Amino acid sequence: MIKTIDPWGSELVEDYEKIIKDFGLEQFDAKMFPNPNRLMRRGIIFAGRDLKQIADAIKNKKKFYVLTGIMPTGNKIHFGHKMVVESMKYFQEHGAETFILVADLEAAAARGVDLEEAKRRAINFHIPAFIALGLDPKKTKFYFQSENMDVAKIASRASKRTTANEFKAIYGNLEPGRIYSAFTQVGDILYPQLRERMPGIIPVGIDQDPHIRLTRDIVKRLKEDKFFAPSSIVNKFTPSLDGDLKMSKSKPESCIELPEDPKSVCKRLMRAKTGGRDTLEEQKKLGGQPEKCVIFEIYKQHLIEDDKELQKVYNDCKAGKLMCGEDKKNCCELMARFMEELTFKIEKAKKQVDKLEFIR
Amino acid sequence: MIKTIDPWGSELVEDYEKIIKDFGLEQFDAKMFPNPNRLMRRGIIFAGRDLKQIADAIKNKKKFYVLTGIMPTGNKIHFGHKMVVESMKYFQEHGAETFILVADLEAAAARGVDLEEAKRRAINFHIPAFIALGLDPKKTKFYFQSENMDVAKIASRASKRTTANEFKAIYGNLEPGRIYSAFTQVGDILYPQLRERMPGIIPVGIDQDPHIRLTRDIVKRLKEDKFFAPSSIVNKFTPSLDGDLKMSKSKPESCIELPEDPKSVCKRLMRAKTGGRDTLEEQKKLGGQPEKCVIFEIYKQHLIEDDKELQKVYNDCKAGKLMCGEDKKNCCELMARFMEELTFKIEKAKKQVDKLEFIR
Repeated sequence: MIKTIDPWGSELVEDYEKIIKDFGLEQFDAKMFPNPNRLMRRGIIFAGRDLKQIADAIKNKKKFYVLTGIMPTGNKIHFGHKMVVESMKYFQEHGAETFILVADLEAAAARGVDLEEAKRRAINFHIPAFIALGLDPKKTKFYFQSENMDVAKIASRASKRTTANEFKAIYGNLEPGRIYSAFTQVGDILYPQLRERMPGIIPVGIDQDPHIRLTRDIVKRLKEDKFFAPSSIVNKFTPSLDGDLKMSKSKPESCIELPEDPKSVCKRLMRAKTGGRDTLEEQKKLGGQPEKCVIFEIYKQHLIEDDKELQKVYNDCKAGKLMCGEDKKNCCELMARFMEELTFKIEKAKKQVDKLEFIR
Repeated sequence: MIKTIDPWGSELVEDYEKIIKDFGLEQFDAKMFPNPNRLMRRGIIFAGRDLKQIADAIKNKKKFYVLTGIMPTGNKIHFGHKMVVESMKYFQEHGAETFILVADLEAAAARGVDLEEAKRRAINFHIPAFIALGLDPKKTKFYFQSENMDVAKIASRASKRTTANEFKAIYGNLEPGRIYSAFTQVGDILYPQLRERMPGIIPVGIDQDPHIRLTRDIVKRLKEDKFFAPSSIVNKFTPSLDGDLKMSKSKPESCIELPEDPKSVCKRLMRAKTGGRDTLEEQKKLGGQPEKCVIFEIYKQHLIEDDKELQKVYNDCKAGKLMCGEDKKNCCELMARFMEELTFKIEKAKKQVDKLEFIR
């Protein structure tokens, strides 16, 4: 019998079970949520915090919010953003008030992007890209950190409710710049509750979990403020094309950004690490190893929406019917279609930017 | 021959020469400044940083600024504030653009004063008190931290230009709340230069010097911003009535706040530590020791404006002609007059508050 897809079976990434234990996360259970999306169904979203309060809010049609940030550096985003936006879209469609903050202060401070330039980039690229990836612009509230004094107010207040030891335990260091940013992020995470107290969920990669932990700790200590502790969902990384844990711009040959020219992406895909055997002969005999294959992981995370279609690729590979060369060509085609559509949608979204709701 | 007043001769306070060395301060030289005020002439202002750029600005009639903050907790201020305001007044009269910030964010975060309440207190008491102490309200710009996003912008930028080690060397610890505040203070100190680059001077007590050091270090690293490093002047503390280094509300019997009921203050003054001898007999023979006397220090710092008059008190005391009982009565009278005048001026200043220039 051919093994069915086991989302935990991927050997491309570090042991996510260990991460759950080490960080004190909850394992994500797609059954808690109605009509789970691709990332939820397939365990790409693998963990979270305080998920029940969000599941309950959806079930009981109570108010809640979803929030994420845009760091307006460069003119590309990556697959990590795509997953976050898809999570935002899921919660938005299930009743969440939706907030996108532009971390222009952070971009200016940490990356030396001039504030005006950061704002321009956010409006001309990042926000349209987020819309292109599925956010409903009519139901989304945007703000710039540099224009939101309320965020600074919460940050200032939060800063007095934590100790050096606690901070070190969460972040591993006490760099002053890191500390300052962290409190601004606490301000961002809680900001929607200044308008109205309600649960909120923040979709993150695991590297962002410390901000969630810090905010949750601080909320407990700001009892009199009656903030709800933020929930989170945590997605796995999209692996680097050479099979490493995470795509990174530091290895451009192994990284795909969004959007990119399909031809150039395809060249890189053709060199990606797969679960193929040493010879065609052998692969036909033993079958491929999709659980070790970056191409398969990209299908699973991003390019194949239909579960049955994904299962078929898996089965054909395992059975030795689908060889890596052919598979990569298929992947190129899907990727090209995705990039073309994305580029088209970004251009379309750019025209909507002046109709957006900016909180000032 | 009777010794003339030696500003460095006070034995009431710790060794200020050592402070200068330890902190890497410049010794203050009143000759650098035209018409030095009482605090400057008498060495109450005993140190500073980068004084030449301010002396030059005054001399050459170039733009510069003077800035201080109000922490709007309680409904009293203390003699430390009085000295800072007198320094502000000096520089204001010598051409400085004058800024007073209300640290309402800090008051809310650190002292649990509600933001609205902090604002109310600043407007109803602290700002009028500062005006009563000599600031020209027509020439002073005020702002609230909670309304000044530019301060947060500088703070955020500054936070990326310092390390944990540096911070620890300056502040002695790495408490996250302290770190957050410190960057806000850097933002405050540099804020006037966002409007226009120019030198500035911050009058401080020695306990505030770390903020000046941090800001000066950060300015060096933000070369491209072309900020002028802030100058400072540092005043000695007003000693506690029992002779300790500094008046503190933790010892209410040894502390005088502003304004207070003259009768109640007088009672405390009568119990103050003086430089008197064990017996009247002895004092008439040996003379008193004004350099050990809190009453004399209060005259010198606050109550006797005229140098000759102060010298006469000193001489009479040294000569055994002025006994402590009589002297304390004189001090009570001067203090009562000062408190009554101050209260009157505060009430008067309250009526001007709605005409002030608030930056928003």
